Amino acid sequence: MENKNWLAGVDVGGTTIKLAILDEDGSFITKWEVPTDISDSGHHIPGHIASALGDKLYSLDAGFKDIKGIGVGAPGFIEADTGFIYQAVNIGWRNYPLKERLEKETGVPVFADNDANLAAAGEMWKGAGDGAKNMLCVTLGTGVGGGIISEGFVLHGACGMAGEIGHITSVPEGGAPCNCGKTGCLETVSSATGIVRLAMEKIESNKAGALYDQFENTGMITAKDVFDAAEKNDQSAKEVIHEAMYHLGLAIGNLANSLNPNVIVIGGGVSKAEEKLLNALRPHFDRFALPKIAEETTFQIARLGNDAGVIGAAWLVKEKG
Amino acid sequence: MENKNWLAGVDVGGTTIKLAILDEDGSFITKWEVPTDISDSGHHIPGHIASALGDKLYSLDAGFKDIKGIGVGAPGFIEADTGFIYQAVNIGWRNYPLKERLEKETGVPVFADNDANLAAAGEMWKGAGDGAKNMLCVTLGTGVGGGIISEGFVLHGACGMAGEIGHITSVPEGGAPCNCGKTGCLETVSSATGIVRLAMEKIESNKAGALYDQFENTGMITAKDVFDAAEKNDQSAKEVIHEAMYHLGLAIGNLANSLNPNVIVIGGGVSKAEEKLLNALRPHFDRFALPKIAEETTFQIARLGNDAGVIGAAWLVKEKG
Repeated sequence: MENKNWLAGVDVGGTTIKLAILDEDGSFITKWEVPTDISDSGHHIPGHIASALGDKLYSLDAGFKDIKGIGVGAPGFIEADTGFIYQAVNIGWRNYPLKERLEKETGVPVFADNDANLAAAGEMWKGAGDGAKNMLCVTLGTGVGGGIISEGFVLHGACGMAGEIGHITSVPEGGAPCNCGKTGCLETVSSATGIVRLAMEKIESNKAGALYDQFENTGMITAKDVFDAAEKNDQSAKEVIHEAMYHLGLAIGNLANSLNPNVIVIGGGVSKAEEKLLNALRPHFDRFALPKIAEETTFQIARLGNDAGVIGAAWLVKEKG
Repeated sequence: MENKNWLAGVDVGGTTIKLAILDEDGSFITKWEVPTDISDSGHHIPGHIASALGDKLYSLDAGFKDIKGIGVGAPGFIEADTGFIYQAVNIGWRNYPLKERLEKETGVPVFADNDANLAAAGEMWKGAGDGAKNMLCVTLGTGVGGGIISEGFVLHGACGMAGEIGHITSVPEGGAPCNCGKTGCLETVSSATGIVRLAMEKIESNKAGALYDQFENTGMITAKDVFDAAEKNDQSAKEVIHEAMYHLGLAIGNLANSLNPNVIVIGGGVSKAEEKLLNALRPHFDRFALPKIAEETTFQIARLGNDAGVIGAAWLVKEKG
């Protein structure tokens, strides 16, 4: 019987491992999740991935001979050429030969990359990038993550750190402290966490308005709440959104001046605000980007959600396999 | 007789065309210049390049069969894949099929790219980049130019505008007007022109100090003069250098956070200040770059001067030919 030439995509997170089998065109055959076993510094993970994939292939009347390879994304610093993990803090891997281990367990070629890079590749292939060869992917979540695709290639940089756009310095003087050790990083003002932080500052100083009322009533504020309140013309919320989007527009406008993307894809929790987000962001971007760049660049909300990582991992197999 | 497999490099500027023939290892066989004939919208240029190369090859007992191809750099927006020039203002080309014309004149393969990109490639191959695969090249001259090399490839972006780092917005509010139509661009504060502009502001407002005296005596100030005066502890000069290097350090620190280069190469007229420049720049860069990026990135002064363009053009033939 002929081999099926399927692509396996795996997205290893701190809590769950997402897995998928896709056909060569990037359509899902199946997708599922298993819990991540981070015991023993994550050393059991390759075995678990191999048996999860093996069992699933068996249930599909197939075997490892039917997959062209396995793409794996993980959070951390990864040497893409060798599939060597320098460090993946949430998983426990440190100087871990992931590619080698997983190839030994499965007998098929393995390709690894940083999870944010693969999410960007997934959006390029099957999502909001829509095949664009020059793409900037910005994830506004707990932090601000990023992936840069130039002429169809994911950029890695000298030691796998390319795309760390959350640590662009947005507030050079007097900015809030960031986990990275610097102050005033983009993610201190434009991530979900940053927007909530700015909102809480308003709530504490004003003790009035829609955000204050909501926080008093529910005990919580999300970034989306702030966008909603701004749309209802709440002054504090409007100021917070202005500040967050001003810095985001400046940072990605400057990146676009240097990288000239076709499309900028915005994902992560904050992107749930969709058009409200893009409408608030676009004027700042247009002001700080070169006129021709502003004209040529389109914005899209990410489309693949949590599937971006496994689709990007499958793309990696398609590209390199 | 065997073909020599030489590489021809051509750097078309508004005043002169620089030409060179190099061996496969990038050593010069010969280099020379001819004036640029920009009459008739630059339509005579391919013919002039062909005859200049043909004559030189003849004088070397060689012919077009001995060159693997011709690399050409020009200022403007160029589609690298097709060698089509959208626009090269100083030359007069507009929607000009340079590759096609020059191939017709010479009968050998032609490859074209933006001159700043090729200067970066030249420095990567034979200059300060010293073979680094991830390089950011910054040219501080009349404006601020740039070239980005990632994993050994020159980045072009969606419409050939990648690397336009001079138009990063450095002064978001109240900055000086820039030729591009925006205000506060990096090149308004950190180019040779920008440094002299800031110095002239000091001279006009203070009417005292080393810069004022020099301007009164000689009628001119260069960026290098400002670095020299700052080193001699002139307060105005120190403030100018601080401002210019603060904005440059912030802009390229942020770019380095996104691109993770091995090396940042500084060229152009301002780079004649050499160690004074790097010493003034480095603390700002280190402050705004991620700690690991600051640690891993080295700075170099460009080494090839005016030869960078023809060497990069020859590299293009080597890579693509």
